[in-house]
Amino acid sequence: MNIEMIRAAAARLEGHVRRTPLLSSPFLDEIAGRRLFVKAECLQHTGSFKFRGGWSAVSALDPETRAKGVIAFSSGNHAQGVAHAATLHGVPSVIIMPEDAPKLKIDNTRALGAEVVLYDRVNEDRDAIGARLARERGLTLIKPFDEPQVIAGQGTCGLEIAQQAAEEGIAQADVLVCCGGGGLTSGIALALEADAPGLRARPCEPEGFDDTARSLASGRRERNAAMSGSICDAIVTPSPGELTFPIMQRLCGPGLAVTEDEVLRAMALAFLRLKIVVEPGGAVALASALFHGDEIEGDTVIAVTTGGNVDPGLYQRALATLPG
Amino acid sequence: MNIEMIRAAAARLEGHVRRTPLLSSPFLDEIAGRRLFVKAECLQHTGSFKFRGGWSAVSALDPETRAKGVIAFSSGNHAQGVAHAATLHGVPSVIIMPEDAPKLKIDNTRALGAEVVLYDRVNEDRDAIGARLARERGLTLIKPFDEPQVIAGQGTCGLEIAQQAAEEGIAQADVLVCCGGGGLTSGIALALEADAPGLRARPCEPEGFDDTARSLASGRRERNAAMSGSICDAIVTPSPGELTFPIMQRLCGPGLAVTEDEVLRAMALAFLRLKIVVEPGGAVALASALFHGDEIEGDTVIAVTTGGNVDPGLYQRALATLPG
Repeated sequence: MNIEMIRAAAARLEGHVRRTPLLSSPFLDEIAGRRLFVKAECLQHTGSFKFRGGWSAVSALDPETRAKGVIAFSSGNHAQGVAHAATLHGVPSVIIMPEDAPKLKIDNTRALGAEVVLYDRVNEDRDAIGARLARERGLTLIKPFDEPQVIAGQGTCGLEIAQQAAEEGIAQADVLVCCGGGGLTSGIALALEADAPGLRARPCEPEGFDDTARSLASGRRERNAAMSGSICDAIVTPSPGELTFPIMQRLCGPGLAVTEDEVLRAMALAFLRLKIVVEPGGAVALASALFHGDEIEGDTVIAVTTGGNVDPGLYQRALATLPG
Repeated sequence: MNIEMIRAAAARLEGHVRRTPLLSSPFLDEIAGRRLFVKAECLQHTGSFKFRGGWSAVSALDPETRAKGVIAFSSGNHAQGVAHAATLHGVPSVIIMPEDAPKLKIDNTRALGAEVVLYDRVNEDRDAIGARLARERGLTLIKPFDEPQVIAGQGTCGLEIAQQAAEEGIAQADVLVCCGGGGLTSGIALALEADAPGLRARPCEPEGFDDTARSLASGRRERNAAMSGSICDAIVTPSPGELTFPIMQRLCGPGLAVTEDEVLRAMALAFLRLKIVVEPGGAVALASALFHGDEIEGDTVIAVTTGGNVDPGLYQRALATLPG
């Protein structure tokens, strides 16, 4: 895993990925106590950065392998990113989801061109189903984060941050990233090391699901006690990845953890001041920038809002945190 | 009023205005029945395109005049655009607002650096108050649309649309614009005439407040029967402007008019598929593209979402139009 793989991914993504804007608001600067820039990756195709990794992985396959199709396990943003990337390449995709996944996510993934295979969480073995389908059809598995070409794709977001920071005259800053398995965080960290060494990536997580922060502190891969119970479902993973953790360990600053209330307030402030829709798991870095300023260094901070796929009902809860 | 004024405004705005992205979604293409691109001007500074005209007008003043400050009548997006532009230029701004304007808008405008002067709609004469303040302090009035430097500023959005359409390979398309007094519509029309002659601007309005559509049809400036009663308050004006109407008459295609229900559904689809926050008056063009396809020509359409300053309560009404 190295910067050349990220640059190669960027070349493959050129003209297909959206260069998402770097937004700001004087109102948010005031709350954050410093200049705050938001990399609005929720505006990416399929509503999250996952399209970058999906496109990178699909486009990296040799044409014969790619033509047989790809397979992924996901009920969320990775599913949509892979499905859309495969369809745009004209190849089939199979997405394995639990049968109790939200209907909207199943429908969206199908509408993006994937064959969705549902399984029973209690009585069926997801991995066995996937392995059988992959074997029978010659599908290539695209893992959500512990996969070099996926990390390379997510890293293209970091190349853009480096360019956009230079355009804004930012030489030094913490770059806060919502962190699940660490694919995006490690990819961004590698890109910044090469192109903006004064910028430092830091993983942000929900309180109680801060496996990466604890792993960085202890020096070994820690696990979360639970895998459910957070509104930030998109970024809850058992532990940092085998590939991603050593990269984060070498390059990232300490992790930050935020409460659910802070996440909801960050979503509402993104609505009010930036006019972007951010999902809970995508608002963790912004919440860190806004409400944990004492844990951040320097006069400028960059927060990546990683996704915007949120149900209207939950969004309403976030808006309810706004005054009057 | 000509293209050179728009190019000069673009040079003054360079580095200060945000180049807003051109977004799209396969889900919206399917509803629209053609390729649909959205110029997300709600992501502009202060949450609407009005910052362009505000910056253009303030920056066009000679330094001595500018130093005395500017004045505007507005309780909405024009107020915030002018206030923010003046503050960034380091000059004072006075915004005249009715005393029953929403508290959030008053607070926002003050927070952007303006002196807000409130008046009683029933017993006081707004224009007299403004004229007295302007005379006493030497303030320059910045009108919301019938002002060449404001039209020139809004026209810079059209220059960007021309560039972005070329990048997407779009040679021919209707460009739908939410239209109040016509400053943005006429500015975009002039820019497209020069830089993308295959693109044609068309004004979009709420039903019952379609003064511009009726004016284009009749060939003279028609008036709206009412000035209130629309959720699209940001774009309700008595009639098209004296300066803007002849430009629209020469360059624009027929106007479109949409229902409130269509506006609310367009806001909800922008939430769901594009992850942008759009206010009712800013969603009229998108609603036209989505729900009035039979009135649009060609296989591609571009809709400008002009603003995102919407109250959470009204936004909730829009989200309630989504299924499930």
